[in-house]
Amino acid sequence: MKIKPYGDKILIKRIEPEEVKKGSIIIPDTVKEKPQQGKVIAVGTGKLDEKGKRHKADVKVGDRILFSKYAGTEVEIDDEEYLMMGEDDILATVE
Amino acid sequence: MKIKPYGDKILIKRIEPEEVKKGSIIIPDTVKEKPQQGKVIAVGTGKLDEKGKRHKADVKVGDRILFSKYAGTEVEIDDEEYLMMGEDDILATVE
Amino acid sequence: MKIKPYGDKILIKRIEPEEVKKGSIIIPDTVKEKPQQGKVIAVGTGKLDEKGKRHKADVKVGDRILFSKYAGTEVEIDDEEYLMMGEDDILATVE
Amino acid sequence: MKIKPYGDKILIKRIEPEEVKKGSIIIPDTVKEKPQQGKVIAVGTGKLDEKGKRHKADVKVGDRILFSKYAGTEVEIDDEEYLMMGEDDILATVE
Amino acid sequence: MKIKPYGDKILIKRIEPEEVKKGSIIIPDTVKEKPQQGKVIAVGTGKLDEKGKRHKADVKVGDRILFSKYAGTEVEIDDEEYLMMGEDDILATVE
Amino acid sequence: MKIKPYGDKILIKRIEPEEVKKGSIIIPDTVKEKPQQGKVIAVGTGKLDEKGKRHKADVKVGDRILFSKYAGTEVEIDDEEYLMMGEDDILATVE
Amino acid sequence: MKIKPYGDKILIKRIEPEEVKKGSIIIPDTVKEKPQQGKVIAVGTGKLDEKGKRHKADVKVGDRILFSKYAGTEVEIDDEEYLMMGEDDILATVE
Repeated sequence: MKIKPYGDKILIKRIEPEEVKKGSIIIPDTVKEKPQQGKVIAVGTGKLDEKGKRHKADVKVGDRILFSKYAGTEVEIDDEEYLMMGEDDILATVE
Repeated sequence: MKIKPYGDKILIKRIEPEEVKKGSIIIPDTVKEKPQQGKVIAVGTGKLDEKGKRHKADVKVGDRILFSKYAGTEVEIDDEEYLMMGEDDILATVE
Repeated sequence: MKIKPYGDKILIKRIEPEEVKKGSIIIPDTVKEKPQQGKVIAVGTGKLDEKGKRHKADVKVGDRILFSKYAGTEVEIDDEEYLMMGEDDILATVE
Repeated sequence: MKIKPYGDKILIKRIEPEEVKKGSIIIPDTVKEKPQQGKVIAVGTGKLDEKGKRHKADVKVGDRILFSKYAGTEVEIDDEEYLMMGEDDILATVE
Repeated sequence: MKIKPYGDKILIKRIEPEEVKKGSIIIPDTVKEKPQQGKVIAVGTGKLDEKGKRHKADVKVGDRILFSKYAGTEVEIDDEEYLMMGEDDILATVE
Repeated sequence: MKIKPYGDKILIKRIEPEEVKKGSIIIPDTVKEKPQQGKVIAVGTGKLDEKGKRHKADVKVGDRILFSKYAGTEVEIDDEEYLMMGEDDILATVE
Repeated sequence: MKIKPYGDKILIKRIEPEEVKKGSIIIPDTVKEKPQQGKVIAVGTGKLDEKGKRHKADVKVGDRILFSKYAGTEVEIDDEEYLMMGEDDILATVE
């Protein structure tokens, strides 16, 4: 099964944060929610502007991105979990 | 009876998710709502932009799409249930 | 008495749904509200766009339409009940 | 005292609905509010669009109109009650 | 002290309604709030449109206007009470 | 330390109202909040319009202005309190 | 790990306020929240306007800025805490 995100939507595979990989327990020292990381799996054709021109999101397949914790809708494709979110939910790309 | 969706509306026939077909009981491991699948039955003439030009939704009859769980209004046509929703409710097309 | 809907308003005569005509009792199997049907009685001159041009609703007198259950305001004309609603409340036309 | 409605405002003299004139008691069979009738007394110079052009409301002094029940602000001029409302509150003109 | 209202703001001196002058006690027969009267004391330079042009409010110093009861902010200048309000709060001019 | 307000922001030094200087106790005779006075200390480069042109606020350093009571964010610069607010919070200039 | 803020986002390293450095305990004498200081670490490519042109935020790497207390999302990069915020959260630059 192949998913083509619609309009300004992008499909993301969530990446577990590095502190979790290290096996350490994280006690949050702040009330602010930390963003989540993910890898871009697919990018929609973009938002339509008022002149009928599409503006594709400025990320490409394989990019690693940061997004806020509650962004997006979970999608299950071939028994794997993905996230479908809008371009506005992207905070940054990570290199 | 034939339905012609108005403006940016599209008519959808809901598809039961594959995990249900396998007969397995799904215990959700997340609070996020999973999107639903459907087949496009009819597409409206599109949204009118500020210059009086119509922009038809970028899906065609027969397309399989993902949409969020609470999207749309149920319509009963010749004893079958359909969903009427706006273009903004489309998350992705599935191939 | 003759009613001329203002701007993007349309005047609708409600049609009882077919399941009611069959005399059967309907037990709704869903929380989603089903749309209602009606016949277009009169159409306003349309919405004014930013360039001062009017865009008439894309329905004509006699068209059968679907609209959401709570759309519109009831109007009594010569002892008959009608609905006055905006173009945005139209879901589809029915043939 | 003479009132000149400002911008898109119009001044309305309310007309008692015909069922009230017949002296009959009306028991509403619906939760929907019925619109009210009124006569146009004065019309403002119109809404200013983005290009600095005014668009006067499409009604003229003497027109009979329908408006929703809670529209407008009451104004007392020379001991008589009037309603001051915006163009958006007009549902239809009545002939 | 001289006040120059900013942008679309206008400075108003409230006028007591005529029924109050007659010394009579008014028992309101309606839940609708009646508008208030005032005299225009000063008018701002106007709202800036998208093309960088200012549109001054269509009232001039000395005009008597109607405005809704809760419009504006009270300002005390040289021991007298005034109201500072936006152009949108003007309902009508009175002659 | 020098503060350069960003975009449409302005930096204000609050002025105590004259009635406070007189040492008198003020018992408010109205529920409406009175505006506050301040002196303009610094003005941002202005709001960006849709065509990429900046529109600076129509006040200059040294101007005395009125603003609503709850406008702005307090800033402490070199042990003195200032207010940082947007152009929309300005009610009037005072001469 | 390198972070490239997306669109109008900027990456900020928070600076502890000077009064905290002096070791003194601050008892706030006001209900208004004081803004926070930070150093700009990275700036996104800017907001896209309606004509498809990007407008980069008017700050550069190394700038010291003021922002409101609750602005932004915390990001942990190589064991250090940063803030990711939108251009609208910038109150001023500090020199």
